[in-house]
Amino acid sequence: MNIAILFGGSSYEHEISIVSAITMKKVFKKSNLTFIFVSSDRQFYFIDAKDMTSKLFSSGDYKKRKLLTLKKGGFFVDGLFGSKAIAFDVVLNLIHGRDGEDGKIASMMTFFDIPFISPCIEASVLSYNKLYTKFLAESLGVKTVAYEYLSKTDERKITMPYPVIVKPVRLGSSIGVSIVKNELELDYALDVAFEFDTDVIVEPFIVGVKEFNQAGCYTHDWELSIVEQPHKEEFLDFEKKYMDFSRDSQVLAADIDNALKIKIQESFKKIYHPLFKGAVIRCDFFVIEDEVYLNEINPIPGSMANYLFEDFEQMVHRLALHLPKEKHIAVDYQYIHSIQSAKGKA
Amino acid sequence: MNIAILFGGSSYEHEISIVSAITMKKVFKKSNLTFIFVSSDRQFYFIDAKDMTSKLFSSGDYKKRKLLTLKKGGFFVDGLFGSKAIAFDVVLNLIHGRDGEDGKIASMMTFFDIPFISPCIEASVLSYNKLYTKFLAESLGVKTVAYEYLSKTDERKITMPYPVIVKPVRLGSSIGVSIVKNELELDYALDVAFEFDTDVIVEPFIVGVKEFNQAGCYTHDWELSIVEQPHKEEFLDFEKKYMDFSRDSQVLAADIDNALKIKIQESFKKIYHPLFKGAVIRCDFFVIEDEVYLNEINPIPGSMANYLFEDFEQMVHRLALHLPKEKHIAVDYQYIHSIQSAKGKA
Repeated sequence: MNIAILFGGSSYEHEISIVSAITMKKVFKKSNLTFIFVSSDRQFYFIDAKDMTSKLFSSGDYKKRKLLTLKKGGFFVDGLFGSKAIAFDVVLNLIHGRDGEDGKIASMMTFFDIPFISPCIEASVLSYNKLYTKFLAESLGVKTVAYEYLSKTDERKITMPYPVIVKPVRLGSSIGVSIVKNELELDYALDVAFEFDTDVIVEPFIVGVKEFNQAGCYTHDWELSIVEQPHKEEFLDFEKKYMDFSRDSQVLAADIDNALKIKIQESFKKIYHPLFKGAVIRCDFFVIEDEVYLNEINPIPGSMANYLFEDFEQMVHRLALHLPKEKHIAVDYQYIHSIQSAKGKA
Repeated sequence: MNIAILFGGSSYEHEISIVSAITMKKVFKKSNLTFIFVSSDRQFYFIDAKDMTSKLFSSGDYKKRKLLTLKKGGFFVDGLFGSKAIAFDVVLNLIHGRDGEDGKIASMMTFFDIPFISPCIEASVLSYNKLYTKFLAESLGVKTVAYEYLSKTDERKITMPYPVIVKPVRLGSSIGVSIVKNELELDYALDVAFEFDTDVIVEPFIVGVKEFNQAGCYTHDWELSIVEQPHKEEFLDFEKKYMDFSRDSQVLAADIDNALKIKIQESFKKIYHPLFKGAVIRCDFFVIEDEVYLNEINPIPGSMANYLFEDFEQMVHRLALHLPKEKHIAVDYQYIHSIQSAKGKA
């Protein structure tokens, strides 16, 4: 199978998307990989797998690679003798943050009829925005922690007790996120968050809360990863974030009882099905007094959460064969013909 | 001002989008109009304003027009001496239903940095799906009528009393909608709705409910239309629907007292701001015992609801000068540089 890895994008997570993409070279051992880079000014470049080093991008050398045009059915190289499509079986959307997770890539792949692995437009918009994720979870009967919502122009006042965590509603990878221990720190945390977004969500910061991650997808059946208990520091510095996006070997399953594992898996399935069909996602849950709460949905997780699966590569192959298809709409101009004959005009 | 009207699309509402687009020729008297047709197989065609008749499309003659390629900054005609951009100041998204209202066009215009009048991606996804519209309205403190939600695979059972109205969640223009008077009729109505969508919403059908439409946008200030009280039959046949999409002259304001008018306008503003900035939308409200309920949001209303405004053309010009701008994200590869120096590798 030939998989086109689409990465980069006009996103605060542009650089970690490059790290994720390079990691895919180690993860996909039996597949042919094609790399399509979306530069920060949104040009598409064809990158040979052998050239995939971080330096190609940081040096600007990617600009010497072939430019691609997105058209019906694929990505094309324009040449003297017309335009030629790049060959692949499926696109794997690996653009973290804006462009990749906000529905733009899903929109374009759907519109231009290119098979792709990614959350669809609706799933993207609902999971990219942490407020909408709350609406979604609530409607599906999955608990989330309490929250308050603030827009840039709102009065900077919250009613929940400290400590709290302040998050821009539309970002991942802890960008713009602060833990706020008291009222005096709130203003600065909001300044930081509003640097990145027009809206923030404030949640209680629960010291020592148990966190569990579950990834998975639906192919012809459920394919769920192990449940991981990430060992997080209070904050991710750049080195730790790099570790997260470059992981390529399986980690150990969390040491939890079967009842809790099933609760986590059932919550994952409620969120996933049917909205996220066609995507591999990771959901991060809190467990508080034996109850499972959705913390966040990672619609395009770092390095695709490959390290949580026993055989990630084969699962992606199966997923590529079970992608949701958009309904064909036939247009026969019957309605316009009726108007024309009713009105005797064209 | 040169306005590019984008119309057609892979949509059940493809044909009425053509009707809406032809209507724009009468509505825009002082602007230059450029027409870009999206065929049902999603090719872009350049159509001269003088050729804009319904016959061009129903006959298939549009296929002889110039094909356009969507690229960074615009729509391009490929020729012997390279590729040339079509000139316009702003795109007006006039694709009703799928492609236009589901976020695809907004995604592509944003990605390729083309100024456009349309709901943004988030606004599209939330208003295209009637279930998500309920979430949105609720979160903004705007009332909606009670509802039940059914997916194709759910048991076909509802708990609310008859009569009810059954609607596919993702369609407009009354397509697939049925009024169901008793339990015996439910099955057939669901069959019809599930022809068009995987999910439906069921609401009480309130005989003789008062309906009011409010359109508007935000430029440098609120620009609200008159409030219209549409005189609807139980159902729209094709002729009446044509009337709705081809209207080009202002209608009379509803005869309501000022207090109700203000309530309707305030509800409209709550829905619109800030999510719909950059768009002209129409909200349809019910008034029940002096309370205002959102019935639905028309993110791209028939003929842009031009007939509700005193000077629609000038308002569109003002809107084009006050479009929301996507935040620029600078990528400086500082993070990758840090990894490289920390690891001593590229």
